[in-house]
Amino acid sequence: MKSLTDYIVMNVPKRMEFVNITPQVAETVRKSGVMEGICLVNSMHITASVFINDNERGLHHDFGKWLEELAPFNASPDHYHHNRTGEDNADAHLKRQIMGREVVVAITGGKLDFGPWEQIFYGEFDGKRNKRVLVKVIGE
Amino acid sequence: MKSLTDYIVMNVPKRMEFVNITPQVAETVRKSGVMEGICLVNSMHITASVFINDNERGLHHDFGKWLEELAPFNASPDHYHHNRTGEDNADAHLKRQIMGREVVVAITGGKLDFGPWEQIFYGEFDGKRNKRVLVKVIGE
Amino acid sequence: MKSLTDYIVMNVPKRMEFVNITPQVAETVRKSGVMEGICLVNSMHITASVFINDNERGLHHDFGKWLEELAPFNASPDHYHHNRTGEDNADAHLKRQIMGREVVVAITGGKLDFGPWEQIFYGEFDGKRNKRVLVKVIGE
Repeated sequence: MKSLTDYIVMNVPKRMEFVNITPQVAETVRKSGVMEGICLVNSMHITASVFINDNERGLHHDFGKWLEELAPFNASPDHYHHNRTGEDNADAHLKRQIMGREVVVAITGGKLDFGPWEQIFYGEFDGKRNKRVLVKVIGE
Repeated sequence: MKSLTDYIVMNVPKRMEFVNITPQVAETVRKSGVMEGICLVNSMHITASVFINDNERGLHHDFGKWLEELAPFNASPDHYHHNRTGEDNADAHLKRQIMGREVVVAITGGKLDFGPWEQIFYGEFDGKRNKRVLVKVIGE
Repeated sequence: MKSLTDYIVMNVPKRMEFVNITPQVAETVRKSGVMEGICLVNSMHITASVFINDNERGLHHDFGKWLEELAPFNASPDHYHHNRTGEDNADAHLKRQIMGREVVVAITGGKLDFGPWEQIFYGEFDGKRNKRVLVKVIGE
């Protein structure tokens, strides 16, 4: 069994944003030499997500608005108890649960085995700082 | 390491519906000859989900009603910017994030290692067309 | 390829609660002897979740309140059709979809390859009974 581990450093200038990381993940798969296996991609931080959806600017706008409705930002420690720790990012922990922590993608014939529109995104919900994404490839 | 890849073609006549695909996945595991490993099952399309929950018709009704409340269908490009592309399926991209893209299931003793009620479902949110589900088995 | 399967029995005295199971999962990884690979951790029951987030009591309070808003408990079979089966736990099936069934964690150098705050939680939404969590390690 072969394996390869890579870490992608993210630094998103906005509080919330979606960044296409498919090229970096594809490059790790290529470097691994794995022809048949799987690729795990996960946020190593708990106020960010990795997910697969459409590379379409309008949809990313919709994601942001929708997540703000479902889990609104509110710095008050009366609204979110998590913010009693001195943080203001409780909403980011909730948004990340909706969008998910990780994706697992099949590798077939040496490539990410994707449908026609699948792209891997990093979802940042508490940005303006360095965070990491882990890419782990296993297979043969 | 052994591996096997299968693709299940889905064509759901309704816009939203939940289809039990456990028998097809179990058959791929059987064919693979893998005794210890994992099985990845994911939608290859970004307006559909693969998830594990209960095979109960009333619950599927509840899922549909609940998802419509959390991420309502609205064809208007004023409501969802994604629909400015000419699509009307922005809600389907949101519903899919709640229900998830994929499941990873353990294979133990040559079988899907399930709890008493676990069944694998395909969740369609923009049907009436051909879509594919990927099944990837790796192990020994 | 090495593999190891463990089952953790949970019995949560409250209906809804979040329990840190990281030590048990880390122990399974240690026992497996796997240095490079992955670890799947999933609830074997469909009214419970396994997820990764912050080990912070205030946040867990926020999760509980937020999930109750998004998918409120309601025993009435008029509100949730699932409860026409004689169950009262339809809300628990919905809450589990938001929080997720499983996590897949990279194993690097013989350890769970975690970011600074990542911890694995069991999320119970219909407690007061025995349930199981599956831990599957594969790798070399």
